[in-house]
Amino acid sequence: MSECLFCRMVSGDLKVPKVYEDPDLFAINDIHPQAPVHILLIPRRHRATILDLDENDQAAIGKLFSVASRLARDKGLDQSGYRIVVNCLEGAGQSVFHVHFHLLGGRPMRWPPG
Amino acid sequence: MSECLFCRMVSGDLKVPKVYEDPDLFAINDIHPQAPVHILLIPRRHRATILDLDENDQAAIGKLFSVASRLARDKGLDQSGYRIVVNCLEGAGQSVFHVHFHLLGGRPMRWPPG
Repeated sequence: MSECLFCRMVSGDLKVPKVYEDPDLFAINDIHPQAPVHILLIPRRHRATILDLDENDQAAIGKLFSVASRLARDKGLDQSGYRIVVNCLEGAGQSVFHVHFHLLGGRPMRWPPG
Repeated sequence: MSECLFCRMVSGDLKVPKVYEDPDLFAINDIHPQAPVHILLIPRRHRATILDLDENDQAAIGKLFSVASRLARDKGLDQSGYRIVVNCLEGAGQSVFHVHFHLLGGRPMRWPPG
């Protein structure tokens, strides 16, 4: 059994409400939301960090941004704006070592981004 | 003549030092850096926001993340970590309306991300 939290969601071993899913990726609400909308977009294929992505992952990453736009529109963020963030390694705040993208919106986003 | 700042860099009308370039995208240092490393990765094709990306852009976005990994390794951020951020619309801090991704590293990154 995989020890990776997100792989356990992929396999169905860990059941969580998904806000989106397709054969390449799925999305869930962050359990520690930092904004009124805080969704995680997660490619199903296990890669520990974005440094581990290779050419075979490029299509899935490109598609992930299309899905993010769709979810943002569904939440009305195409008017108010949103930010997409990905952390690589602990020094940048990565806590789960399976690539995931944060989509945050529903409040003004400050600068710098952390 | 394009009024878009980044399109003027693409056309060569505005000359700036590039830290990377290929037929799909280029990268420059942010003129208002928020971290010791703060690079902008910019697809050449004009899209005002990430909401305007379509299926024809997916490959370029996927490739952009591969280039980001390469630049991060060049800067030693594959040890200390880095964050990639993209802002959509003014409410999220977007100031230039031509899609660009921020790569930040060289210091600990805080949470929330802005």
